[in-house]
Amino acid sequence: MTLVLNRERFVETMKTQADIGGTENGGLHRLALSDEDKAVRDWFSDQMEAAELSVRVDEFGNMFGRREGARDLEPILLGSHLDSQPYGGIYDGALGVVAALEFVRELNDRDIETDRPIEIVNWTNEEGSRFQPTLQGSGVWAGVHDLEEQYAATDEDGVTVEEELERIGYKGSEPAEPATDYDSYLELHIEQGPYLDANDKDVGVVTGIVGLTWGAFTFFGEANHSGATPMHHRSDAMVAAADVVTQIRRIPSTLGERTVGTVGSVEIEPGSINVIPEQATITYGFRDPTVEVLHEAEERVIQEAEAAAEREGIEVEHESRADADPVYFDDRCVDAVRTAASDLEYDAADVFSGGVHDATHAHEVCDAGMVFATSEDGKSHTEDEYTSWDDCYSAANTLAVAALELANDER
Amino acid sequence: MTLVLNRERFVETMKTQADIGGTENGGLHRLALSDEDKAVRDWFSDQMEAAELSVRVDEFGNMFGRREGARDLEPILLGSHLDSQPYGGIYDGALGVVAALEFVRELNDRDIETDRPIEIVNWTNEEGSRFQPTLQGSGVWAGVHDLEEQYAATDEDGVTVEEELERIGYKGSEPAEPATDYDSYLELHIEQGPYLDANDKDVGVVTGIVGLTWGAFTFFGEANHSGATPMHHRSDAMVAAADVVTQIRRIPSTLGERTVGTVGSVEIEPGSINVIPEQATITYGFRDPTVEVLHEAEERVIQEAEAAAEREGIEVEHESRADADPVYFDDRCVDAVRTAASDLEYDAADVFSGGVHDATHAHEVCDAGMVFATSEDGKSHTEDEYTSWDDCYSAANTLAVAALELANDER
Repeated sequence: MTLVLNRERFVETMKTQADIGGTENGGLHRLALSDEDKAVRDWFSDQMEAAELSVRVDEFGNMFGRREGARDLEPILLGSHLDSQPYGGIYDGALGVVAALEFVRELNDRDIETDRPIEIVNWTNEEGSRFQPTLQGSGVWAGVHDLEEQYAATDEDGVTVEEELERIGYKGSEPAEPATDYDSYLELHIEQGPYLDANDKDVGVVTGIVGLTWGAFTFFGEANHSGATPMHHRSDAMVAAADVVTQIRRIPSTLGERTVGTVGSVEIEPGSINVIPEQATITYGFRDPTVEVLHEAEERVIQEAEAAAEREGIEVEHESRADADPVYFDDRCVDAVRTAASDLEYDAADVFSGGVHDATHAHEVCDAGMVFATSEDGKSHTEDEYTSWDDCYSAANTLAVAALELANDER
Repeated sequence: MTLVLNRERFVETMKTQADIGGTENGGLHRLALSDEDKAVRDWFSDQMEAAELSVRVDEFGNMFGRREGARDLEPILLGSHLDSQPYGGIYDGALGVVAALEFVRELNDRDIETDRPIEIVNWTNEEGSRFQPTLQGSGVWAGVHDLEEQYAATDEDGVTVEEELERIGYKGSEPAEPATDYDSYLELHIEQGPYLDANDKDVGVVTGIVGLTWGAFTFFGEANHSGATPMHHRSDAMVAAADVVTQIRRIPSTLGERTVGTVGSVEIEPGSINVIPEQATITYGFRDPTVEVLHEAEERVIQEAEAAAEREGIEVEHESRADADPVYFDDRCVDAVRTAASDLEYDAADVFSGGVHDATHAHEVCDAGMVFATSEDGKSHTEDEYTSWDDCYSAANTLAVAALELANDER
């Protein structure tokens, strides 16, 4: 018989975590290293101890709980993150941590001993909203980021990550690095995209994560009186910026099937109804499963920005902000997830993740894979984020069955 | 012989006022009702008293100085404003007040008695940057704005105009209304546009002020993850807003020779590199010498905004923020300025003002006219604003000669 989790307890646990930092509108406001984050960490630590896991916290606040295996093999690692976006949803991150916890509880209940040890994890500051960058804890752990540099990251009040880790008591004693070689990493997360929902799927088998290229353009126009300056005397930074916004809506349609491009932020100086914009800064971000398309998108948008600046007779500066190569998950992890969904008789689909996840960094350390839960309308990073308990449960069972397979896979 | 001012004293007086709130970069930061505004008011009051003017301050802080005439006729009124934009220039406003002061000093020096009394004025809060609206003091005085409503206007810290008038000691005892019937109002101001400079003119004879229509559009899209949301699932508020910015660059070229259109402010929510914009608010402003063109421009931009919203499948709200009809100055004032420039042998040109001025409101009370000083490159509302002392002096002499003509015009 295929393993399934205790549905009632699973849903209760999801609701319990959602109360810690829960908002009036049913969302979650649990910023990394805030008092709410401390509260949910304390709760999670208690739950791990109650499940007889040996708990350790590393010096970057990443929390691990270990359940020993029958044999001295490399452990498997399961988890996600308990921090949230400002006024975000209750599923993003937390679902993956709760599913991992429920998996070890289920093993305990059924007295199942696995060959490999199992570790579950709550990564510090996945969201990157209070402190940048995103995926901070898993990045330090995987050696992608430097510990001291990340300690020094500040929030908008100038408070550092290290100060907040100390304040909330989660600057642990373990080194922020893999404590051992790991066999594999599995992460359950909501899709945060509409594909599974639009296609009426129970669960997603994640085959990889798109790469991204992020940057910004600043256009330098000339501030002038909006009434007294004839149109042909103007050097309007915002007009040039608007041209690029328009082109970023169009560029993806000329590149790949899955290419997306976004201008998420626009800042304009001086920003008065009565003054021609002197300076306009727009960010851009493109994502695609292939590096070639990302390079092409970046080249194209730089050309567009230069052409737009030339039309207004102004200067433009380009700043590259982030680049991440696409991730292709390891066959054995992807197969384990696909087989689990099939064994559970779920209607599953292969999906490529449009967002980054801690699995991106874990993939640097060991084989990795992911399970996606259906997101209603693909909404996330908002209090309206929603996944039905049915879909949460299907995804959690898929994670559990896949994890059990890997935990008994000797290789 | 045609009257000319004492050039040395005139330049010294301009420099003295420019030191009060002067910036490192040679600009001026003298926001309405700030400590710097109080300081320049105290200085101006002393100068008026030293020139033997009878000084009065009305309950909205407008400052008047009166020099009696030989006969009991309606006085002429001359002036402008001493407040500045944030990090603005030293000429905008102050030049008109200093020229008026130098005119009465010159009359004193030469023992000239005019038929009509002469009043000079410093209007409160012309700029409208710290407290809205612009032209606040002259608007209250002319009965265009309600005194109590304008007292209640707040700056971004929530401080009211009335509180600040009391704090700096410039809530005067006189009613904020014309103390008498006035014969005419003349104002010298920098052009704040490039026309005189581009055409190498000494001085401008202002025939009127363009009308304006101001408003804002807010687009309501859907916030979603910038990576996981396919392009065809997006409702991007900023993409729609950018379309309108582009159209506002184009619309004027299809309307009038002098039509201008500007998007000065863009605000975007949530404004994260990683989130599709949920909300974008842009302001717009059109100016033109004719009401018909303004109406047409407003209609056109509303159509463009609705079309842009429809393309993104989102909603848009339109908000009208201000409308002002064009002003056509009175022939006798325009003629007095034109004749003065001619008598002084300046190369003058008729110009239509692209910006509003206190003369807009004074025109409601009595005949009005304006003199423009050449603005280098038309720059203003910036520390780079520049008018040569030659051009300042030419404009001030033009004002003086025109004012002397009106002050002796019995009608």
